[in-house]
Amino acid sequence: MTAYPETNRHQVTKKFRKLGDLTTDEAAAAVRQSPLVIIPVGAQEQHGGGMAMSTDTVRAVGVAERVAERLAGRAVLAPAVPYGVSPHHMSFAGTMTLSPATFMHVLRDLVASLHDHGWRQFLVITGHGGNNAALSVLAQEYVRSELTFAWTPVTSVVADLITGVSEVHGHAGEAETAQMLYLAPDLVQADRLEPGATTLDDLTTTARLSRQSRGPRLSVGFDAYHKRGVLGDPRRATAEDGRLLVETAADRIATFADELLSA
Amino acid sequence: MTAYPETNRHQVTKKFRKLGDLTTDEAAAAVRQSPLVIIPVGAQEQHGGGMAMSTDTVRAVGVAERVAERLAGRAVLAPAVPYGVSPHHMSFAGTMTLSPATFMHVLRDLVASLHDHGWRQFLVITGHGGNNAALSVLAQEYVRSELTFAWTPVTSVVADLITGVSEVHGHAGEAETAQMLYLAPDLVQADRLEPGATTLDDLTTTARLSRQSRGPRLSVGFDAYHKRGVLGDPRRATAEDGRLLVETAADRIATFADELLSA
Amino acid sequence: MTAYPETNRHQVTKKFRKLGDLTTDEAAAAVRQSPLVIIPVGAQEQHGGGMAMSTDTVRAVGVAERVAERLAGRAVLAPAVPYGVSPHHMSFAGTMTLSPATFMHVLRDLVASLHDHGWRQFLVITGHGGNNAALSVLAQEYVRSELTFAWTPVTSVVADLITGVSEVHGHAGEAETAQMLYLAPDLVQADRLEPGATTLDDLTTTARLSRQSRGPRLSVGFDAYHKRGVLGDPRRATAEDGRLLVETAADRIATFADELLSA
Amino acid sequence: MTAYPETNRHQVTKKFRKLGDLTTDEAAAAVRQSPLVIIPVGAQEQHGGGMAMSTDTVRAVGVAERVAERLAGRAVLAPAVPYGVSPHHMSFAGTMTLSPATFMHVLRDLVASLHDHGWRQFLVITGHGGNNAALSVLAQEYVRSELTFAWTPVTSVVADLITGVSEVHGHAGEAETAQMLYLAPDLVQADRLEPGATTLDDLTTTARLSRQSRGPRLSVGFDAYHKRGVLGDPRRATAEDGRLLVETAADRIATFADELLSA
Amino acid sequence: MTAYPETNRHQVTKKFRKLGDLTTDEAAAAVRQSPLVIIPVGAQEQHGGGMAMSTDTVRAVGVAERVAERLAGRAVLAPAVPYGVSPHHMSFAGTMTLSPATFMHVLRDLVASLHDHGWRQFLVITGHGGNNAALSVLAQEYVRSELTFAWTPVTSVVADLITGVSEVHGHAGEAETAQMLYLAPDLVQADRLEPGATTLDDLTTTARLSRQSRGPRLSVGFDAYHKRGVLGDPRRATAEDGRLLVETAADRIATFADELLSA
Amino acid sequence: MTAYPETNRHQVTKKFRKLGDLTTDEAAAAVRQSPLVIIPVGAQEQHGGGMAMSTDTVRAVGVAERVAERLAGRAVLAPAVPYGVSPHHMSFAGTMTLSPATFMHVLRDLVASLHDHGWRQFLVITGHGGNNAALSVLAQEYVRSELTFAWTPVTSVVADLITGVSEVHGHAGEAETAQMLYLAPDLVQADRLEPGATTLDDLTTTARLSRQSRGPRLSVGFDAYHKRGVLGDPRRATAEDGRLLVETAADRIATFADELLSA
Repeated sequence: MTAYPETNRHQVTKKFRKLGDLTTDEAAAAVRQSPLVIIPVGAQEQHGGGMAMSTDTVRAVGVAERVAERLAGRAVLAPAVPYGVSPHHMSFAGTMTLSPATFMHVLRDLVASLHDHGWRQFLVITGHGGNNAALSVLAQEYVRSELTFAWTPVTSVVADLITGVSEVHGHAGEAETAQMLYLAPDLVQADRLEPGATTLDDLTTTARLSRQSRGPRLSVGFDAYHKRGVLGDPRRATAEDGRLLVETAADRIATFADELLSA
Repeated sequence: MTAYPETNRHQVTKKFRKLGDLTTDEAAAAVRQSPLVIIPVGAQEQHGGGMAMSTDTVRAVGVAERVAERLAGRAVLAPAVPYGVSPHHMSFAGTMTLSPATFMHVLRDLVASLHDHGWRQFLVITGHGGNNAALSVLAQEYVRSELTFAWTPVTSVVADLITGVSEVHGHAGEAETAQMLYLAPDLVQADRLEPGATTLDDLTTTARLSRQSRGPRLSVGFDAYHKRGVLGDPRRATAEDGRLLVETAADRIATFADELLSA
Repeated sequence: MTAYPETNRHQVTKKFRKLGDLTTDEAAAAVRQSPLVIIPVGAQEQHGGGMAMSTDTVRAVGVAERVAERLAGRAVLAPAVPYGVSPHHMSFAGTMTLSPATFMHVLRDLVASLHDHGWRQFLVITGHGGNNAALSVLAQEYVRSELTFAWTPVTSVVADLITGVSEVHGHAGEAETAQMLYLAPDLVQADRLEPGATTLDDLTTTARLSRQSRGPRLSVGFDAYHKRGVLGDPRRATAEDGRLLVETAADRIATFADELLSA
Repeated sequence: MTAYPETNRHQVTKKFRKLGDLTTDEAAAAVRQSPLVIIPVGAQEQHGGGMAMSTDTVRAVGVAERVAERLAGRAVLAPAVPYGVSPHHMSFAGTMTLSPATFMHVLRDLVASLHDHGWRQFLVITGHGGNNAALSVLAQEYVRSELTFAWTPVTSVVADLITGVSEVHGHAGEAETAQMLYLAPDLVQADRLEPGATTLDDLTTTARLSRQSRGPRLSVGFDAYHKRGVLGDPRRATAEDGRLLVETAADRIATFADELLSA
Repeated sequence: MTAYPETNRHQVTKKFRKLGDLTTDEAAAAVRQSPLVIIPVGAQEQHGGGMAMSTDTVRAVGVAERVAERLAGRAVLAPAVPYGVSPHHMSFAGTMTLSPATFMHVLRDLVASLHDHGWRQFLVITGHGGNNAALSVLAQEYVRSELTFAWTPVTSVVADLITGVSEVHGHAGEAETAQMLYLAPDLVQADRLEPGATTLDDLTTTARLSRQSRGPRLSVGFDAYHKRGVLGDPRRATAEDGRLLVETAADRIATFADELLSA
Repeated sequence: MTAYPETNRHQVTKKFRKLGDLTTDEAAAAVRQSPLVIIPVGAQEQHGGGMAMSTDTVRAVGVAERVAERLAGRAVLAPAVPYGVSPHHMSFAGTMTLSPATFMHVLRDLVASLHDHGWRQFLVITGHGGNNAALSVLAQEYVRSELTFAWTPVTSVVADLITGVSEVHGHAGEAETAQMLYLAPDLVQADRLEPGATTLDDLTTTARLSRQSRGPRLSVGFDAYHKRGVLGDPRRATAEDGRLLVETAADRIATFADELLSA
């Protein structure tokens, strides 16, 4: 593990506006100058024996700040929602979950508030895949409105860059750990990282069925995959890989946002 | 258009139990003999100028019946829910949409009812992609229960078999029309089929952004794709292709269900 | 049991528009030509030892199609809602119930969708008395809207024609069985029909109190009436009686709808 | 108008327990001694030019007290809910309506509270027909509970006693005015009573369709019946008729309750 | 205990309009003449061994009528809501509680109804402190509307006048009992009044923490204070004190309302 | 303004556990070792021309961390909820508000999650007075549970220490600005601080009525107080005063928590 400074988490160049840091006067100006609102959403949930439970929030914020920076003032960054939809991790102590309904209510209220002030374009960046379904439902609701509501996961937009990993990988595995080693190494206890399920043969039939990329969908609790709730081998992660994933994800999402702003 | 008999829609060999046809005594026996419940869900929404608005329900039922038949008595088939989540088609007359919340309430109530009678395994087959997000949310809710709640779309489980189609294809396009020509040719008015958006160049920036397979997600109304709300060229569809898609989808979903029943 | 062909269920002369069969273009035309929307709602619930659980849906659809036919193009028929409010039958296997709240959400969403397309007049035909209370609540809600929301049961509009039946009769009894023998004889297993409660003396005090036509209302589970959940003697039913009930109900409801359309 | 004393409204012999008057110790004793809870529900809505808007609450309480008295200690009387479901009167100033959902929430909460203390039998007496639909829905919900939830209107249990009235009669008409002249003559301004719609010929087609006793149901605002929102001729009412209606209704409901308590 | 006549409860000079007593025509006139609506809300909950469970409703109505009288026609008085938010008293038989959500729904519906008729100013007078939190939430909701929604407790507006009481006092104690002796002595059984917790030393740590006037808030059930659920010594109460509290509260609230009406 | 280092905000001695920083194994241990959960809740809302909109979140977290530190391991600190109930500030750009219902859903879900893992004691620290009403409602709901749910504002627990301030003071005034100068001086733009309403004479009648400490409650939008939405004169604030307020608030709340833990 390379000793990356903690500042990677918080100290990207401050070329973007954080709504929490602004005064109301500055916010009034931002409605016109920064027409895109980025809302990072994360989770508070188990990430194996060596990683902090705020992992998904940290990653969402880390990518969101970098996207905002790349947009050079055309976006404002709202305070992160540090809780997400995590029922599948509830058998692990410390996990906190919002119901999908609550999570959707929160985002509807936040979007409606800023809509009242004149914003029309929203991009939610989620560090947690468990939020995807609720975000998809929200996106459907906004189809009939005048708002643009886009959302994106972090890791899956750079899935093509994830190589040399175990057959089964994902939650708290190689890619997430790499991102944390780059963004917030103080939240990774390297000596406590241990592999979870790494091959399909490790899985029960039910668990294996839930991992099919094509075909019927089945959701299982993460204790059904492995007693540690980990998919993959986090020991293989490096901060350098994390940098690649985080910065490329930010590039790609910023490109998307740029097109959206120009549409 | 080949003259396929209407009976393809309803007359697969009756080797499976339809809950609507059973008496309560037969249902009591089925709890033990047929531990899997299959619930087809569809939509009532525009499918271009030549196809019936019940298309997604017809396809869900068609595949569901074939899956039930392949399971040879180990599944019961519940009455189809003929309405789904279709806000993105509401600019086209005749489309009827349930809110995601209503759609989820319906499925929760149906599952709870059969759970009361002793069933524990559920498989929802949706003919309409607009239902996917809500089904994903439901699947998350059931993770913490004793129930198994699986769900599957129809077309995407056979996406690898869809070849020779336009660059942009999907809703009311080649694959869906083919399925209907096989399952219910009386609901296709072949002389009124006309192409919708077929190339990415046909699309506005916003519409194109919403079609990226990787990357941020954006939902748009289907009038944003094309004035007819069609993706692809339905005139290319053949009943033979439809047979391949429908029967292979049924094969694959039945294989999944079989594993689930044996787990 | 007379051998009535199965086609009675589905094959009334196609002089009416089924929304599920229409294309969106045809629906756009129907808004003006067919200003009344008929929505059949049924139930999935026990109907004794010899009748299918879809009985109430079949009857609702059977009557609704005949009403639509009599209106000669001035009405469109929406896809039937095959589930209703059936908590009082939940002690019998296979019964599936929506909560009253869910049932109302479904109808509100369906009506709102078609209202968006321009329809203003709605007639719900319910084959299941358990839906009446929720429909009454909905009707109250629409009083303050620009919509006309009417609804009707099937059997009670022809109650005066039901003669020669047992003292206690009703659910899965003479009249419902007769209608099924006419509409869908394949869903009646005549050799398994057996009488339920037929006289007031058969009933417990509580059950008897719930059957008073005048006076305080009391709802009980149908197992409180009889172990088979049947009221009356279905063996007395004939298809000829069924024809009278179904066709007269359709006549009377069509007359009502005609007046409504002319108002 | 005979000069009946105001005390008819409040001063029936105090042989019954009013929950509002009891101490908690007395309530604890009443759980066993008075196993039936009677909850009067009314409305705050227009009752024509000469009658108070609390009419339905006054009548519900008047009958409820008399029923409680006849049960000689076996029932307790909860405080009346003075608001009901009255959307159909909202075009008349001063009408206040609860939504059906709110009304049901109130009753669920009241019943649940007393259930917690040990009561199992509930009888709601409504002076307002607009509450009937919501009460029917509630009754369905309680079918699957251990509670007995009965409910009754006031006037319709004595409909056979209403004679010599106009062809169209009902809201704020002969029977309701008579009851008020008996129960609370101070709330009737006899010189301002005036007839509303009295014959079917007075009604528009839509209004007439909504008054059919048999056949499809249609709800209309009461301004659709008559500009005063009155059905019938309240000037024909006498306190003597009111006494007959009120006391007989109390007799019949008490008989029902007595059987229920003995069941 | 002085023998105050029962009429103190109901018979303040009728210089104000009770909405329940008005006809709809009189209500139509009142919209302009009496622009303020006063809604009394109470509770049905234990008040110790000697006081009626309707105590909070009686006190709310008593003060509300006096406020209305002082406003000399500029206010109308709506029917009292006789149930409130009382979960903290549910361990005592006879207490009935609305959930905070239900309570808020009721008030929203009542306010919306009168808003429809043209009223814009509302003052809720609560006799029960358990309603305060929900009323505060409602007040926040109305900030963004055109309505004025004010609310007030009864006793706390005259807290400076309560002297010579025990160290711990409050629910069913000196001040509430005094008010009842003045307003409705028939609902006080003087011989059954008994002291509850009167000194902080009587309380457990948790109970004491919940009584701090400054500092963190903690809510406990009233059985945690004292087995009788009483705070203070009701035997010290006099009707004369009650008169002072009630009439002064009415004076102060009327002054507030007067300023509001003139603003 | 003294140059206090930014680290006051985040760098109190790490003698307490932050749930977001823990692994699930550490959380499992904390259930027993740290039985109290502290949840800071803030707001995103205008705080005048010179202070950041995250002010209330920063202050809640600042105090919460200090309370946790004083409890020396017996408490864990959950991730802060950075949004609150702020409708009264919505006329100022950048304010984001959750509805009271959403805010309550969030807290219920968070508490329920940790309850599932074994925690029983909860203390919410709110930096925003607009959250108080919803927290009071929640506290009522938990009275009937096995949970202890306490909550506290920040400033009002040290109201006795606020001296030498303007007649009208509060939101974004002397005390809040002082706390920010101590906790996060980088979020205060001293040169843009300007006085808001400082005397009662500055206020309209309605605004003045809403500021009465005793008597009826009235909520108004903060634009009704002053065009800048500020109460008091923030220019008088010093970091030294802020230190006194923050550290004393932490002392007092920790004392309360300590007693609660020992009860």
